[in-house]
Amino acid sequence: MALQVGIVGGGQLARMMIAPAVELGIRVRVLAEQSGMSAELAEEAVGDYRDLEAVRAFARGVDVVTFDHEHVPQEVLRALVADGIPVHPGPDALLYAQDKLLMRARLAELGMPQPEWAEITNTDDLQAFLDVHGGRAVVKTPRGGYDGKGVRVVAAASEAADWLAEGTPLLAEELVDFTRELAQQVARRPSGQLVSYPVVETVQRGGVCAEVLAPAPHATGRLAEVAASIGEAIASGLGVTGMLAVELFETADERILVNELAMRPHNSGHWGQDGANTGQFEQHLRAVLDLPLGDPTPRQPWSVMVNILGGPVTDSLASRLPAALDAHPAVKVHTYGKDPRPGRKVGHVNAVGDDLDAVVYEARSAAAFFEG
Amino acid sequence: MALQVGIVGGGQLARMMIAPAVELGIRVRVLAEQSGMSAELAEEAVGDYRDLEAVRAFARGVDVVTFDHEHVPQEVLRALVADGIPVHPGPDALLYAQDKLLMRARLAELGMPQPEWAEITNTDDLQAFLDVHGGRAVVKTPRGGYDGKGVRVVAAASEAADWLAEGTPLLAEELVDFTRELAQQVARRPSGQLVSYPVVETVQRGGVCAEVLAPAPHATGRLAEVAASIGEAIASGLGVTGMLAVELFETADERILVNELAMRPHNSGHWGQDGANTGQFEQHLRAVLDLPLGDPTPRQPWSVMVNILGGPVTDSLASRLPAALDAHPAVKVHTYGKDPRPGRKVGHVNAVGDDLDAVVYEARSAAAFFEG
Repeated sequence: MALQVGIVGGGQLARMMIAPAVELGIRVRVLAEQSGMSAELAEEAVGDYRDLEAVRAFARGVDVVTFDHEHVPQEVLRALVADGIPVHPGPDALLYAQDKLLMRARLAELGMPQPEWAEITNTDDLQAFLDVHGGRAVVKTPRGGYDGKGVRVVAAASEAADWLAEGTPLLAEELVDFTRELAQQVARRPSGQLVSYPVVETVQRGGVCAEVLAPAPHATGRLAEVAASIGEAIASGLGVTGMLAVELFETADERILVNELAMRPHNSGHWGQDGANTGQFEQHLRAVLDLPLGDPTPRQPWSVMVNILGGPVTDSLASRLPAALDAHPAVKVHTYGKDPRPGRKVGHVNAVGDDLDAVVYEARSAAAFFEG
Repeated sequence: MALQVGIVGGGQLARMMIAPAVELGIRVRVLAEQSGMSAELAEEAVGDYRDLEAVRAFARGVDVVTFDHEHVPQEVLRALVADGIPVHPGPDALLYAQDKLLMRARLAELGMPQPEWAEITNTDDLQAFLDVHGGRAVVKTPRGGYDGKGVRVVAAASEAADWLAEGTPLLAEELVDFTRELAQQVARRPSGQLVSYPVVETVQRGGVCAEVLAPAPHATGRLAEVAASIGEAIASGLGVTGMLAVELFETADERILVNELAMRPHNSGHWGQDGANTGQFEQHLRAVLDLPLGDPTPRQPWSVMVNILGGPVTDSLASRLPAALDAHPAVKVHTYGKDPRPGRKVGHVNAVGDDLDAVVYEARSAAAFFEG
């Protein structure tokens, strides 16, 4: 009998697990929020991930339940576990990806390097934080944010008054003077085996990941080792199973600080589909099924991923495909089956090679065919 | 609207088009001979490929019809073309993959190097051929053979008497004293664009492909050029669209002779899934849709494919997967979702790297986990 993985969430991360699943002979079922989503090419059910009975019905008969996103409520996750269904990552780990205040407190216990932070429940708290951090801070809602949503840079306590008025505590963080952003991915099996990908550089534009360079250029042995050890300590310390992405700041004084966590395949790892011996989507399937993990080694010196965002002209990616493929025969184009609404991630391209400048140019040029 | 490809035939070649189709945003529909075949993970219809109405119904709404095998009757193919449905490869090309006598005659017209051959309609013809070719010959049924079926080495005309009694002509070929077998793949679009893969070495056991080394070791510049020029001349000369594989003999006196043709993805090209910038399954989809072709360049110096055949112990590949993945974390395992009956191709492994001996060892060792 083929192994069967149930993925809650029908977005592009679920979609991109289909290809490696077909190759390894793993059946993938998806619980999509609505029909016609990115992962509709898998065996698809439609249901609300907040509805225990819908998720329970979906989970019947699968070997493991995993996720395309981190939004499934704890009550639902814990009920599945009580039913005896393997859930990876499990609720105890996912909690720290769901709540940024809990994450900060737990990473502090683990001794992880972080920006200075505080729990804020009123404008006086926030003003006090601003006073000792140069008059500026990053304020985050602990739950529900992604891609820049639920995050604000403030210079006065009044700028977060609307969020504070909602009555739930906020997270305030120092505004880190970083030189660049990095991401460290680690895969971990329930039985404890763990592999680390090379640390990569992520380039954000407008709060959204725009490009990833793998491995991170100028990542000295020390930097790569520190990043991997942080990733491994968090994966083990939080009991993460499946893929973990740790978003990092690198500062001018050569410190590395943990920014965010994601417990699923992550945009920073798309390069590995075409650039690593084992891409993150195959690795996630192997990890959540407790199969031996694959080799994460890059196959080429450099891999570059550039996201395709929907632009002001809304037409289909398919119409742009011929010109892009014609101009860039060695670039790999990955599409998500989404309508290209402005600013929405609708696909990405991967380029690989020996010369970083050439690979960056190739990836950016190919992605540009799909934009504007 | 996503492009839609209809594949007639539900075997592993159709299955392996699913992964690149998902990535490029191409919808794949399969007309399978029965339910539960290798390609069942695609959108599947079940029907008889010899039944025009079944194929016609299947073809409704697809952008192109292509194939997992070459057995669709000419009448069916020609009726689809008359309906205005793009069919690639088309009937005029497929004819030469369906009938080995027609193929030999046409390749002779094109001036391609071939074994000596003759059309044989009775034992006298065959005895005459044997007399001038050292008393041994290969006899083939012109239609319906594959993987060694429909092929016999004979030393006396009587050994083909049963086939001759059926009243259809046979093909007799000289028994070539070859040093090794090679395969040349070429992709060609309807609009004429053509790309050639590096020539590879194929190792047969028991009439079935066992291993492929890519590129062919010791393939000098001249050998590679001659092989590519033969592939390109046949693709253009026969009007092939999609992937063409030309199986070749290399002789002790350094000649290259055309053995067989396949007008579809072919076992000799599986290495490219993990070893080439554009694998043959993606390339076939691009070619039949008349999209610009991808770069066929190998990403590593060496790629080795080893087939997994069902062995005397019939259990599922899934049960062998953990041990194989554990021992060979960098090898890529591809499974076909088939019951492992003895001698049946049920999957393959690909290994890549810088050192040919190490890559061969890695691929063979990994495949061995699934056999016996």
